[in-house]
Amino acid sequence: MTQPTSTRSWVACANGHRDFPLQNLPLGVFSINGSAPRSGVAIGDYIFDLQAALDAFEGEARRAVEATAGGQLNAFFELGRGPRVALRERLLELLGEGSPLQAREAQVLHLAADCQMQVPARINDYTDFYVGIEHAQNVGKLFRPDNPLLPNYKYVPIGYHGRASTIRASGADVRRPKGQTLPAGQTEPTFGPCARLDYELELGIWIGQGNAMGDSIAIGDAAEHIAGFCLLNDWSARDIQAWEYQPLGPFLSKSFITTISPWVVTAEALEPFRKAQPARPEGDPQPLPYLLDKRDQAAGALDIELEVLLTTAAMREQKLPAHRLALSNSLHMYWTVAQLVAHHSVNGCQLQAGDLFGSGTLSGPEAGQFGSLLEMTEGGKKVIELPSGEVRRFLEDGDEVILRARCTREGFASIGFGECRGTVVAAR
Amino acid sequence: MTQPTSTRSWVACANGHRDFPLQNLPLGVFSINGSAPRSGVAIGDYIFDLQAALDAFEGEARRAVEATAGGQLNAFFELGRGPRVALRERLLELLGEGSPLQAREAQVLHLAADCQMQVPARINDYTDFYVGIEHAQNVGKLFRPDNPLLPNYKYVPIGYHGRASTIRASGADVRRPKGQTLPAGQTEPTFGPCARLDYELELGIWIGQGNAMGDSIAIGDAAEHIAGFCLLNDWSARDIQAWEYQPLGPFLSKSFITTISPWVVTAEALEPFRKAQPARPEGDPQPLPYLLDKRDQAAGALDIELEVLLTTAAMREQKLPAHRLALSNSLHMYWTVAQLVAHHSVNGCQLQAGDLFGSGTLSGPEAGQFGSLLEMTEGGKKVIELPSGEVRRFLEDGDEVILRARCTREGFASIGFGECRGTVVAAR
Repeated sequence: MTQPTSTRSWVACANGHRDFPLQNLPLGVFSINGSAPRSGVAIGDYIFDLQAALDAFEGEARRAVEATAGGQLNAFFELGRGPRVALRERLLELLGEGSPLQAREAQVLHLAADCQMQVPARINDYTDFYVGIEHAQNVGKLFRPDNPLLPNYKYVPIGYHGRASTIRASGADVRRPKGQTLPAGQTEPTFGPCARLDYELELGIWIGQGNAMGDSIAIGDAAEHIAGFCLLNDWSARDIQAWEYQPLGPFLSKSFITTISPWVVTAEALEPFRKAQPARPEGDPQPLPYLLDKRDQAAGALDIELEVLLTTAAMREQKLPAHRLALSNSLHMYWTVAQLVAHHSVNGCQLQAGDLFGSGTLSGPEAGQFGSLLEMTEGGKKVIELPSGEVRRFLEDGDEVILRARCTREGFASIGFGECRGTVVAAR
Repeated sequence: MTQPTSTRSWVACANGHRDFPLQNLPLGVFSINGSAPRSGVAIGDYIFDLQAALDAFEGEARRAVEATAGGQLNAFFELGRGPRVALRERLLELLGEGSPLQAREAQVLHLAADCQMQVPARINDYTDFYVGIEHAQNVGKLFRPDNPLLPNYKYVPIGYHGRASTIRASGADVRRPKGQTLPAGQTEPTFGPCARLDYELELGIWIGQGNAMGDSIAIGDAAEHIAGFCLLNDWSARDIQAWEYQPLGPFLSKSFITTISPWVVTAEALEPFRKAQPARPEGDPQPLPYLLDKRDQAAGALDIELEVLLTTAAMREQKLPAHRLALSNSLHMYWTVAQLVAHHSVNGCQLQAGDLFGSGTLSGPEAGQFGSLLEMTEGGKKVIELPSGEVRRFLEDGDEVILRARCTREGFASIGFGECRGTVVAAR
């Protein structure tokens, strides 16, 4: 366990902070009033400015800080685990109680509320998986009640290529997309604004060191290629998706925007929250050998509580708090993150530092655990009642969706991911 | 018409050259013996070194040349049509007979055979379309003989996101991928090297100026956003594809490599080879308004002859010439390139300079016009007989696939695309 629970930070608000106590130390890229993007570490309600404190680092840790310069974390991701751990260890000293850095507080800390967070890396390729098995079953049931999962689901970590150019950091407006849809009972499509706009609650995975084209990453080595984690909202236009997706998969129904939480939560911060991969139900096949690793089975699952909240324009006017739509957990992943890396590269596909994976929607099996409106409303058949007296089948203009994530464990400091927010704005 | 047919080049081998006469002037990025990548223009058997001749350009043309520096053409693509046309006009003078530049031949020309061609731009996102209607019908017939096209095909320019990291320039080895496949008659997959490796003959489209996220590119403006064209081989592992592709589309069956011809043939060079979009067959729907533009219907189709050739290791040993597998044409695109741009951005998806589109396989309706082995062998049922006495159902190790393209028209100089080659090497 790499979590020093007894250590407290001189940044007082960090101690017991919901998301960013000293035990978390996620990395991100920020700017202040439009300045050039800088790299930083979240600590309580502040951002620790890595470049401003460069002189406090040496050796591997300094190499890591230098690699975060320039407003993109790709070079840092590429360095891999060693420098990342060295950086973490030095940060624990520098931000822990008794650090001489406290005397330079004004120079090295920025109030996070004054900063604008950026997408933290140049995303070369974005892959969206579909490994939330409860979601796959919930959605499959809408179309095939007796046979919700396709025959390949329990053998293949299903995924597809997503659009990298429209990934934005939390807070970006979600412009309602226009497109072709097929009205119920019709044979000819019409064109107009999406009428069934939805969110998807996903875990994002940042790739660290890549592989050469033609090489594969063995599952036992996969952890070395994972730089960190975030939240990801895979906004989805269900009506556009239903009409366009055969035979080659979702395209314009997803590519209008994908929102991520901007802080990269490291594997080291998540270490205490690893668990054994849940046993496969009786009758499920064992993973093929290239997807099977004892250590990964023993500790490759992540216990992260995931939450979806909604506010509407009316709720904000009435000063009502955000309404929780779902509480789920990343343990609903049928495949581990290491299995995703091994599968993605098994054909020789080159992964690169700064690639982003989405897990797929992480729903639980019960009402209250569904990671999309598609599941909550059974494809728009049911309504969701909100505290404002409004109802929703799908998202309306002015609705804001907030994703949150939090790891808790007896005897350990809780850590969070920060938020992944987006507000729907009217179609152009 | 921007083609000066009467003009001849002082680069003697360019006059009447199969691919690169003075009327073509495609741009590319090359290196010599591992030197840093440089930008150049193909002229006959030579490459004209743009940076070495920088002093010969001024105004818009110089701005264009400066934007090609650094070994990637993205900044040049971003400049759009004006500077590109200015560059072309100046190149016609500089490489035409009587140019003072002839005196500096040794300084500004490199023998192409001495150069290594690179992928000419940083590809941010790669989208593969499926608009070769004959291919879609040929493949659809294998699975649904009575109803080969899905209901959306004639309304939606079908496309999906591809993998950008494994796009390589002509000549890169094609490592046979490994993956999961479902043996015939079985219910459980096995893992191993692909046994049904195939090519796909496609046109590649380079995107020029992009759009802001949330904006759409109107079809009437689409031509302004297209920088040029290349050939694209969408190598496909059919057995992996059949097992993995439901419900989210092809993934590892395509992402091991995509090969492109390295020269960017400009819209200006192709101008004489534009045609009216072929009339839709009786009963086919009209495109929705956002995909319909009079000028595009009148001149948005491209008449490019496309060719696939094969050599095997045995054929090369026996000094047999490459065997033509198919001769097709880009007129088999059901949608124009402008329609692809308008569709891709209609939901507000951001396109960026250096994005690459694939057209989808461009087969004709007849035997001898099929752009993949899947079609030629009816899914492996028939064999192809080769001049060496060998037969093929799918590609074997050592097979080299060569794509070529050529535009011809009475009264105009023919232009070509150069080659897109790849040789299959054994799985690791």
